[in-house]
Amino acid sequence: MMLEELKESVWKANLGLVKHRLVLFTWGNVSGIDRARGLIVIKPSGVSYEEMKAEDMVVVDLGGKVVEGDLRPSSDTPTHIELYKAFPALGGVTHTHSTYATAWAQAGRDIPFYGTTHADYFYGDIPCARALTREEIEGAYEKNTGLVIAERFQREGADPLEVPGVLVKSHGVFAFGKDAAASVYHAAVIEEVAKMAYLTEQLDPQVPRADRFLLQKHYMRKHGKNAYYGQK
Amino acid sequence: MMLEELKESVWKANLGLVKHRLVLFTWGNVSGIDRARGLIVIKPSGVSYEEMKAEDMVVVDLGGKVVEGDLRPSSDTPTHIELYKAFPALGGVTHTHSTYATAWAQAGRDIPFYGTTHADYFYGDIPCARALTREEIEGAYEKNTGLVIAERFQREGADPLEVPGVLVKSHGVFAFGKDAAASVYHAAVIEEVAKMAYLTEQLDPQVPRADRFLLQKHYMRKHGKNAYYGQK
Amino acid sequence: MMLEELKESVWKANLGLVKHRLVLFTWGNVSGIDRARGLIVIKPSGVSYEEMKAEDMVVVDLGGKVVEGDLRPSSDTPTHIELYKAFPALGGVTHTHSTYATAWAQAGRDIPFYGTTHADYFYGDIPCARALTREEIEGAYEKNTGLVIAERFQREGADPLEVPGVLVKSHGVFAFGKDAAASVYHAAVIEEVAKMAYLTEQLDPQVPRADRFLLQKHYMRKHGKNAYYGQK
Amino acid sequence: MMLEELKESVWKANLGLVKHRLVLFTWGNVSGIDRARGLIVIKPSGVSYEEMKAEDMVVVDLGGKVVEGDLRPSSDTPTHIELYKAFPALGGVTHTHSTYATAWAQAGRDIPFYGTTHADYFYGDIPCARALTREEIEGAYEKNTGLVIAERFQREGADPLEVPGVLVKSHGVFAFGKDAAASVYHAAVIEEVAKMAYLTEQLDPQVPRADRFLLQKHYMRKHGKNAYYGQK
Repeated sequence: MMLEELKESVWKANLGLVKHRLVLFTWGNVSGIDRARGLIVIKPSGVSYEEMKAEDMVVVDLGGKVVEGDLRPSSDTPTHIELYKAFPALGGVTHTHSTYATAWAQAGRDIPFYGTTHADYFYGDIPCARALTREEIEGAYEKNTGLVIAERFQREGADPLEVPGVLVKSHGVFAFGKDAAASVYHAAVIEEVAKMAYLTEQLDPQVPRADRFLLQKHYMRKHGKNAYYGQK
Repeated sequence: MMLEELKESVWKANLGLVKHRLVLFTWGNVSGIDRARGLIVIKPSGVSYEEMKAEDMVVVDLGGKVVEGDLRPSSDTPTHIELYKAFPALGGVTHTHSTYATAWAQAGRDIPFYGTTHADYFYGDIPCARALTREEIEGAYEKNTGLVIAERFQREGADPLEVPGVLVKSHGVFAFGKDAAASVYHAAVIEEVAKMAYLTEQLDPQVPRADRFLLQKHYMRKHGKNAYYGQK
Repeated sequence: MMLEELKESVWKANLGLVKHRLVLFTWGNVSGIDRARGLIVIKPSGVSYEEMKAEDMVVVDLGGKVVEGDLRPSSDTPTHIELYKAFPALGGVTHTHSTYATAWAQAGRDIPFYGTTHADYFYGDIPCARALTREEIEGAYEKNTGLVIAERFQREGADPLEVPGVLVKSHGVFAFGKDAAASVYHAAVIEEVAKMAYLTEQLDPQVPRADRFLLQKHYMRKHGKNAYYGQK
Repeated sequence: MMLEELKESVWKANLGLVKHRLVLFTWGNVSGIDRARGLIVIKPSGVSYEEMKAEDMVVVDLGGKVVEGDLRPSSDTPTHIELYKAFPALGGVTHTHSTYATAWAQAGRDIPFYGTTHADYFYGDIPCARALTREEIEGAYEKNTGLVIAERFQREGADPLEVPGVLVKSHGVFAFGKDAAASVYHAAVIEEVAKMAYLTEQLDPQVPRADRFLLQKHYMRKHGKNAYYGQK
């Protein structure tokens, strides 16, 4: 069996979706990539988290071909592939329909930067990628979903490790990380930040974004070269 | 003892109501039908989920007569019967007062299609059947509840397996499935979709429905003859 | 030791507050009464649910005198006493600050009858008793809280077993029952109904009450002399 | 090893953040102080609650110097230090990003006194300290956060044991207590009161504060020299 370590970590990351209450039933999937070999390991489609084992993770190449595994890969695999192709720094991708984040996606709105919880992980608003056109949906839908996400980041010159997640209009969440576990971590952050931003707007529908220099301070405190949060 | 297998599955499906947090106390019931024999198995009335056993499930015929069982069947049994009579494809029915879905029912509103989470299971809005008239309420209330649901589906030519659930105004939820477990699954989907739609409207009170071709794509990806979600 | 059975049931009912998530820390208390002896058993003040035992329950008479027990009774004891005196049918009283119900109390609003979940237990709106006056607060505050509740029920000729609970403006919930357990049950119903009514109004700020004959049907189906819900 | 007892209580208080659902990941920290020695014990930075042990707690002096411990102290340590310096009565400080309280902070609003749940612990509104200026953020940010909090209390002559917590605009919560455990207790109260106040305003956007004499009554019932809540 190939990529055992990656399979183990992708399997555990998928279980993290349940632990952090980011999924109902089988509504989410996590993948990781071995960049050296150009191989992606991803959750099998429609299989419950409770039943699946590390060895059930499916190996696909960047062309979408199943290289190893008895089960079909997630139907969202072509989206994951496009994201790995567009963003060479990514090591892991998570897809969820977590409740509050999906509400923002259904409203078709970026999640505005309202405070330091947000700034600790996202260096700016959490973007909501545009709706796919009829042609994009009726064509290679999942692949096009990835392309529409990439389009949004490229248009703004955003770095997917500095803005490690995105909504897709009328759909849900894709979160990024240096590995599978980090992408799940960011998916959990997005859900919590989405809930806080929702509540903030209900308290004050005219609330402005927080100050840009606060964003910079908090993000850099954790992520810049002079970061001083956490252990060395 | 008759219909042991069906009793076991209906009992487990009722426990699923607790697992998915769709009920407080005894506020929900699930049934399944043996179409060949024309017999329905349903939860006994007012008995707690923790205490009841598979053999406590009650067997009734389509005329509402108890065929086997020491306990009274759910007081909602006549509604289940009308639904089985109106919709020959149904194998299971679930009734709940789950929180968000019941709020939509109390507001008397269909749950609009706002995104793919919804479209993965419901091929259109989740309808809210009209309020019963005074005569319907003071007459055969539970039977009339089933008739009012059937009326709504028949008026629109809707297929209860493509729209596997419905609200009843000022009341709660009835969910459908090919068997008892599937109807509970759909009840859980309805509650989650009801919450997402609620939040979506709070974020943007003027939010339009998502695009019809997105509905079609997502529903067919899981349910059409060319479905490619899940394992073969 | 006296009233052992009642102490056991009052102790268990208090633990029900935790089970149904109706309290944070020590923010609730339940009592039961032995009508024949005119003695009330109630939770001790400020003691955590996890630590207390059945024998810690305090016995007080209707004059408020501690008859048995090493601990102080709940500081809300005079309210319980007034409720038992005003409503001879009560066997149990629960006080909580459960989240949604307390929000309605803080808004100073009755919870309108919006659907059958409500009607299954409350034969009409859940009333919110008026704010106490400065004199009432600075005088015998807890006793006056009971009197203000009784005033509301008496003014409307309401039966506290048909409307088994009430809010107090700017404060919280008092729920009633034929015994301690039933009063906790009703406290849990109030919280759930309060949440549903909250969500219903957010979905439609102009939503009208449900029909009066639906209220009558559902309440009587469970409580009238021709009730047919549950087992005989 | 020094201050073993304090380390044990600070460690347990930090675990209380998880128990009361006040933190996601490592988003909170608790400290306690030994006033006689002028030493603070605080959570290490970025370490998960599940993994850390009592002996991992870090000892720092009031100048911010690490006196004992292999790990870095919380990056918020300078805020804790300023609070201990400004408020000699404090024995414990808790920092969280709990959901509802953080939404109020992001909206930049004091939490108004709407009822007795609030009054049982806070003798007035829960203040929201002003946003830091660009200079304050780009300078000694964490230290300045403490100074901005102290400024708010000093301006109003507020007593941090009578108003045992504060929001910081666009950021989160700091809660106070006579020891570490009490500060976590107050952080949990703030989150619950923040949720209730949120819901209250949604039910009635024009809701006024509760009466001042109710605030006085409830606060004094628990805290004044004639307090009669709890055991002696």
